[in-house]
Amino acid sequence: MEIAAYMAELGEQARAAATLVARSTTAMRNQALLATAEALDAARDELTMANIKDLDKGRENGLDPAMLDRLELTPARIDTMIEGLRQVASLPDPIGEITDMTYRPSGIQVGRMRVPLGVIGIIYESRPNVTVEAASLCLKSGNAAILRGGSESIHSNQAVAACLARGLAEAGLPETAVQVVKTTDRAAVGELITMPQYVDVIVPRGGKGLIERISADARVPVIKHLDGICHVYIDSHADPEKALAVAVNAKTQRYGTCNTMETLLVDEEIAADLLPLLAEAFSAKDVELRGCPATQAILPQVVAATEADWSEEYLAPILAVKVVAGLDAAIAHINRYSSQHTDCIVTENFTRARRFLTEVDSSSVMVNASTRFADGFEYGLGAEIGISTDKIHARGPVGLEGLTSQKYVVFGDGHIRT
Amino acid sequence: MEIAAYMAELGEQARAAATLVARSTTAMRNQALLATAEALDAARDELTMANIKDLDKGRENGLDPAMLDRLELTPARIDTMIEGLRQVASLPDPIGEITDMTYRPSGIQVGRMRVPLGVIGIIYESRPNVTVEAASLCLKSGNAAILRGGSESIHSNQAVAACLARGLAEAGLPETAVQVVKTTDRAAVGELITMPQYVDVIVPRGGKGLIERISADARVPVIKHLDGICHVYIDSHADPEKALAVAVNAKTQRYGTCNTMETLLVDEEIAADLLPLLAEAFSAKDVELRGCPATQAILPQVVAATEADWSEEYLAPILAVKVVAGLDAAIAHINRYSSQHTDCIVTENFTRARRFLTEVDSSSVMVNASTRFADGFEYGLGAEIGISTDKIHARGPVGLEGLTSQKYVVFGDGHIRT
Repeated sequence: MEIAAYMAELGEQARAAATLVARSTTAMRNQALLATAEALDAARDELTMANIKDLDKGRENGLDPAMLDRLELTPARIDTMIEGLRQVASLPDPIGEITDMTYRPSGIQVGRMRVPLGVIGIIYESRPNVTVEAASLCLKSGNAAILRGGSESIHSNQAVAACLARGLAEAGLPETAVQVVKTTDRAAVGELITMPQYVDVIVPRGGKGLIERISADARVPVIKHLDGICHVYIDSHADPEKALAVAVNAKTQRYGTCNTMETLLVDEEIAADLLPLLAEAFSAKDVELRGCPATQAILPQVVAATEADWSEEYLAPILAVKVVAGLDAAIAHINRYSSQHTDCIVTENFTRARRFLTEVDSSSVMVNASTRFADGFEYGLGAEIGISTDKIHARGPVGLEGLTSQKYVVFGDGHIRT
Repeated sequence: MEIAAYMAELGEQARAAATLVARSTTAMRNQALLATAEALDAARDELTMANIKDLDKGRENGLDPAMLDRLELTPARIDTMIEGLRQVASLPDPIGEITDMTYRPSGIQVGRMRVPLGVIGIIYESRPNVTVEAASLCLKSGNAAILRGGSESIHSNQAVAACLARGLAEAGLPETAVQVVKTTDRAAVGELITMPQYVDVIVPRGGKGLIERISADARVPVIKHLDGICHVYIDSHADPEKALAVAVNAKTQRYGTCNTMETLLVDEEIAADLLPLLAEAFSAKDVELRGCPATQAILPQVVAATEADWSEEYLAPILAVKVVAGLDAAIAHINRYSSQHTDCIVTENFTRARRFLTEVDSSSVMVNASTRFADGFEYGLGAEIGISTDKIHARGPVGLEGLTSQKYVVFGDGHIRT
């Protein structure tokens, strides 16, 4: 009950602040971002001390090394946060843009104006740098934000929040435009996702389990990113050099990212020629292959893939490999097992490329390019709040535009409807 | 349990059909619409007989005259359904459109392709003509549909469904692309809105109570239209002639529509001059005025408005009238009481118009035009599945585009990320 009241208070403050942020000028919002950058730079000692508290507590509680690493605010990470704020400040302001203004037969002019969503709730793990990143994107797009980071990063996040408050105040914006939840009580999340009167959309960032739970319980729209089971299909008309380059890059450029290839499909017509070359390239990178029977027939050293492998997001140097009977079989496999994140065809054949683009129902469909390109920065969005595997509202990499909506504007001269 | 199994079966069939509809050509989908129009024309007798069954049952059950009217399939309404199908067939196909294709510094080309959402669930009242309208918009936009009309129209809807099935079959599309729920059991709605594995979005059409219940219980995104509490604000710099024309049209052109004005705000500077003229015009149309104390001081004959009047969607010849102290007070009143549907300022002042457009947070904001223009057809969308009072995904009048999404397409030449 106390938590509910506390969260309702944050919500009410956020709602009030959202109106002011929505009306603020581009210059004010940019100033808040730049002033926050200054404040972070000036607060390096406080940030580091707060972070040491979190790290000590984390070690005490036996956090694993990967979690401790994500939790750490090194000087380089503070630099990156500062640089990130400056970059977001330099992006064009999406808010207020009026498009498609046209005259209608009735004589009225109709167009659309881009507007903020209102209040964004962001739920994320114990990575204090995300606090700055999320706040900057919400603010730039004219929204107020309520941020709820992992409880292990509570002291770091509060230190970051103090810098944000300074930046906002300096720009004449309400400090409540960005609120970082002060309690580590998990009930706060349950409240945050069930306050449609105060929160317009939730963006959860974290593991699939967390996001599924939030989506199931939320009473507010959720921009969600579940898993990335990405495919590369090498067609019989593929250029073998491009095929090798794309497949190896898609798997090995980074293992832990959602746009990494997890399953490789190879057309049976070229499997005997290509699989040995692929196996050699992956072996050189210490990638374990798990293959279908046809793959094993060509590569006897390969472990057998089980049914579960086709649905597995390894996030590791492991790759499932399947030989398929052409384009139809590839598309059928992808539409069945893909997480609708990013899928690629390697081919020189125009008609097959065209069919793949049309028939594969994923947020990014590619021809002859590594799945690793599926990213807001690579796509030119200038920023990325996440990658949506939903179809509603935002699909694929979500930049500032995903945090906005459009309203209709109508101009008349005393026009009435008859 | 039987209902759950039946709805899951519809869902599974819809999901399978959606893949085929998404891949179908523009010509096939248009042919299905035109063939359905033919089938309706050929089935006038069957439609009328089925409708008579529903009407007889409705009279027996004591339906009120307004409901019976909406339920009736007159020859003119059948004509309108047929004409509607032909109009939707003639609209441009939104699906497959590729936009914003640009080169990135990495050398890849990135753009977006418009794609169907998948399976749309539509829940509506006992108006058999909506069955055709909803089906045609879902189909045109490449989606499969599950339609659940009011139980009073069950026989009419099944007769319409038979025509849709004929049209789909003739075009070589699966009959399961449009399924009309065959049971009148209310549990079917509960199932339909909680099958995210089969249904991508729900569009409820009906009263506010129905839509609120559906939104509260849905486990699927809902494109919802709650109420229309629309305002016209007459600024002190308004042209009195335009003000009168817009105010009278916004209230009296039709009373029962969601874009009808329900509250009139008048700047105190011109209230004494303008209110008597407005009162005369509304009196001539038999519109009852309910006024704030300042209104009553100028128009002693006017009933006192209560606090509840500012939140009331009358849908009747009743109008709440409030005198406000200028633009700030008008915007504050609107942002507090408006349902964020459509709000209008009448003014000749550029800066005030600009502020109103920016600061009023409604799906349509207008200058010097009747709120009655807030409509998909008037806006040039070519069709309208509803008007969204949400901000996520679709806002304001929703046409075919609201039933689609965009995926990213990436072209490369063996590009890899470094």
